[in-house]
Amino acid sequence: MSRKIEVCLTPALIDLYAIENSIVVVIDILRATSSIVYGIDNGAEAIIPVAQVEDCLNYADKGYLLAAERNGEVVEGYNFGNSPFSYTADKVAGKTIVLTTTNGTKALHLARSRASQVVIGSFLNLQSLCDWLKNQDQDVLLLCAGWKDLFNLEDTIFAGAVVQQLKGSFVHFDDSSVAAEDLYNLAKDDLRAYVGKSAHGHRMIALDIEEDIRFCLQLNICTAIPVLQGDNLVALNITV
Amino acid sequence: MSRKIEVCLTPALIDLYAIENSIVVVIDILRATSSIVYGIDNGAEAIIPVAQVEDCLNYADKGYLLAAERNGEVVEGYNFGNSPFSYTADKVAGKTIVLTTTNGTKALHLARSRASQVVIGSFLNLQSLCDWLKNQDQDVLLLCAGWKDLFNLEDTIFAGAVVQQLKGSFVHFDDSSVAAEDLYNLAKDDLRAYVGKSAHGHRMIALDIEEDIRFCLQLNICTAIPVLQGDNLVALNITV
Repeated sequence: MSRKIEVCLTPALIDLYAIENSIVVVIDILRATSSIVYGIDNGAEAIIPVAQVEDCLNYADKGYLLAAERNGEVVEGYNFGNSPFSYTADKVAGKTIVLTTTNGTKALHLARSRASQVVIGSFLNLQSLCDWLKNQDQDVLLLCAGWKDLFNLEDTIFAGAVVQQLKGSFVHFDDSSVAAEDLYNLAKDDLRAYVGKSAHGHRMIALDIEEDIRFCLQLNICTAIPVLQGDNLVALNITV
Repeated sequence: MSRKIEVCLTPALIDLYAIENSIVVVIDILRATSSIVYGIDNGAEAIIPVAQVEDCLNYADKGYLLAAERNGEVVEGYNFGNSPFSYTADKVAGKTIVLTTTNGTKALHLARSRASQVVIGSFLNLQSLCDWLKNQDQDVLLLCAGWKDLFNLEDTIFAGAVVQQLKGSFVHFDDSSVAAEDLYNLAKDDLRAYVGKSAHGHRMIALDIEEDIRFCLQLNICTAIPVLQGDNLVALNITV
């Protein structure tokens, strides 16, 4: 099969892609998908992405952890937001977390209604994700969550990292996958410095989350691949 | 004034930008905006961009040249399409041309209703355009026409060339302008080879328009800056 890789640079463009037979990888490096990967890798039973802060409240009496982030900050009254340090094993193992974020959960909801399968990508599980994608007989759409529907650098360079690893196994690439790979190659020797060129990076500095950023730019410290099953993100059962 | 530059990577994202006080530069390197610049530089009195092929017919009895392109080819029954070689002085000097193209005229129509001013960019008038933009006291949005609302490489690297020239005069840059400049720096030593990485580039090869591509990637062979006045693109009266 002559498989193709495409990169959707923002959720606002998702309707341009035919994804009914594709695996969609949702990417929100700072910080939603990094934290989701870390949480599932640390034994969270499930993470339930919801679109609105108010949707979290529907789960309030079920003993779930409630996580809500808007504009980079924890929403008042919630257990935590999308900092990866809230998703350590001592906090999340065996737990179910209900999560809403500014960009990442929106992208997830756009993808889920149409895609064949939806998985979660981050630098933390890059290798594991790429190994698995290579072995599937399906097209891949890398969906960057961006920032409020705008292009962002950190999600794009991660998409480029995936393109670079997969290109030997795929035949067709769109222009955005070419650009993403080229940008990743520029960035890869110092991801932190490259992300610092970003407007979002400046916003992150204002939020005082330098440790979060550095954490999210680590490669391959996790092997879990979160996959959407019904309403829940759970660990994909990888059989290579 | 702390001016900003932003790059809108496809017309599908234009509504995300506040452009009421901005100059919008419309970019469709292969081939609409290159041909518009060349035609105006060669003395065309005006070029009237219209959205639909049928709209051209409203001008049929006015003695105008009618130009229509769809999917890279001249529409049957029209004088010509968007090949720059149709816009030489012997063909267009003193003439008015009515033009519709797949992507470029669509981008123009999206920008015109909201922007403070709309001008046309291409590698052919890069220097002249940048010199003028530097001297205006306004924000700049570089609007890539893309390919059917998708990101493309050639429009993006041109946007990057503009960012590179203007960055000393502007303070704020969005992530897409950072990416565009980095891609331009990768491409600049051999624009033709870089554009050849594009899916659109492959399409162009299929259309047998290699000479057009090479023509459109020449730097600074024109000084005219087409500007939208009412319905017409005309030569901007540059007073430096």
